Amino acid sequence: MREDFTGWCKTVQSQMEAALLSHLPATSLVPHTLHEAMQYAVLGGGKRIRPLLAFAAGELFDALPDGIERAACAVEMIHAYSLVHDDMPCMDDDDLRRGKPTVHKKYDEATALLVGDALQSQAFELIAGGTLDAERKVVMISRLARAAGSLGMCGGQAIDLDSVGISLTRQALEQMHRLKTGALLEASVMLGALAGKSLLDNEELALRTYSSAIGLAFQVVDDILDATADSATLGKTAGKDAASNKPTYVSILGLNESLALAEKLRQDAHEALLLFGDAAMRLRELADLIVQRKT
Amino acid sequence: MREDFTGWCKTVQSQMEAALLSHLPATSLVPHTLHEAMQYAVLGGGKRIRPLLAFAAGELFDALPDGIERAACAVEMIHAYSLVHDDMPCMDDDDLRRGKPTVHKKYDEATALLVGDALQSQAFELIAGGTLDAERKVVMISRLARAAGSLGMCGGQAIDLDSVGISLTRQALEQMHRLKTGALLEASVMLGALAGKSLLDNEELALRTYSSAIGLAFQVVDDILDATADSATLGKTAGKDAASNKPTYVSILGLNESLALAEKLRQDAHEALLLFGDAAMRLRELADLIVQRKT
Repeated sequence: MREDFTGWCKTVQSQMEAALLSHLPATSLVPHTLHEAMQYAVLGGGKRIRPLLAFAAGELFDALPDGIERAACAVEMIHAYSLVHDDMPCMDDDDLRRGKPTVHKKYDEATALLVGDALQSQAFELIAGGTLDAERKVVMISRLARAAGSLGMCGGQAIDLDSVGISLTRQALEQMHRLKTGALLEASVMLGALAGKSLLDNEELALRTYSSAIGLAFQVVDDILDATADSATLGKTAGKDAASNKPTYVSILGLNESLALAEKLRQDAHEALLLFGDAAMRLRELADLIVQRKT
Repeated sequence: MREDFTGWCKTVQSQMEAALLSHLPATSLVPHTLHEAMQYAVLGGGKRIRPLLAFAAGELFDALPDGIERAACAVEMIHAYSLVHDDMPCMDDDDLRRGKPTVHKKYDEATALLVGDALQSQAFELIAGGTLDAERKVVMISRLARAAGSLGMCGGQAIDLDSVGISLTRQALEQMHRLKTGALLEASVMLGALAGKSLLDNEELALRTYSSAIGLAFQVVDDILDATADSATLGKTAGKDAASNKPTYVSILGLNESLALAEKLRQDAHEALLLFGDAAMRLRELADLIVQRKT
């Protein structure tokens, strides 16, 4: 009998905790503080949405554990580095992350800067290692680099910073989020899948459509939660976007239409997976989780 | 007749300027300011020591132009990103770099942070592209990631920050520099060579020995210049290390012994290249340049 979704998530999350620890430099290595701070930034928290996506996509194509783990750890390290840098005073200036002091508060700004920089390198080193064939590793690295860089996550972050206090159209808001969060969520799905096999065109297209829908849904729900939940529940400062006058789906569409949009995107994600039948159950459940989560 | 060394350097430097521009996202792409700032950080200056090393090592093994250029651009982008981050207020807090305002002065801190982050991704994307066989790309990526990360450049930077105001032994100073600058200089040689062919053990060992010698020499000479040259000549703030109480070769060994050490390392570098005969002429000339440079 197949494990239920909640059980599967817990299994993956605890497997990830061990995998991340094993793929980060040991704190016994010099420089000790940097390695300790890297572990602080990555371990012991977070919903691990990106690893869950990588695992679900990897299992869809019967990827081996080492390949899935490397893909999942790499995307999570990129995500963790982006949080460390985004929290810094020159960006979002946040003191709280996953219910704990942010890296620059716990350590200092210089350490936070280096933690992020080193985590990014570590992500690429991780994929370059392992036993997958070199061709697939290169595709994975290329995808991850593109998703992380100026035409992906960093680019989205730059647009976000430029748009504070400006009234964005829904289209411009969508483009920002496609880059800022969507690109790495898509890379999580793609790298997980590539850990299993090279993708056929129709598989690639289906997974892209799925990723695109959940990527946007993720952001819409983030905006809904930022507007409706409290800091203690979120483990980070709530109401931050409204306070800093950042455009959000809720500010542009209103709460009810945002909720309807999230539900529509969930259905789009399900539809994109029809090609894979039952085997895509976990990806379907993750789309539901992303839309129905409370934190 | 072979081009003289100065002419060769100028040819490589101007080829690099074009290659870097072509391998950076166009400023016409969104986000425009980020892409403009990335170009500002990378183009139009610098001695291009790392690209020169990559070209010299690539030419030693008859690497094709596209492979050499990608290797050279990748190491230079990693170098440029590290300068942008190192110059930020939470690190060295420098206003001047290559005779121009640093990125966070010209733009702002958030942009500088993202420029560095995006340049690192771009470096890996660059190597993943191109026509080299996938096996060699993976080795190159792995080497570059290791050289850039917490056991390489970022690690050296962390040790450097921790050592301000502390009296380091010569051995500890050397370990710091092996990571902080040595690792990426070695990667420059190795990636250039790998653009030509997979390396035999004795070739690998010879190039490592060479890299190790010029890496240390580079830092010894940097310290000598910081203590003896003026800001206008250097294009950056001189006397900074002494002022901020950072340990340097000059402060530990004195000026004369530092000069002697640089010369000894130059000879070690030459000796390591004996295996390659005349074909390694450019690498030899670069060792001379690194030790004899005035800026």
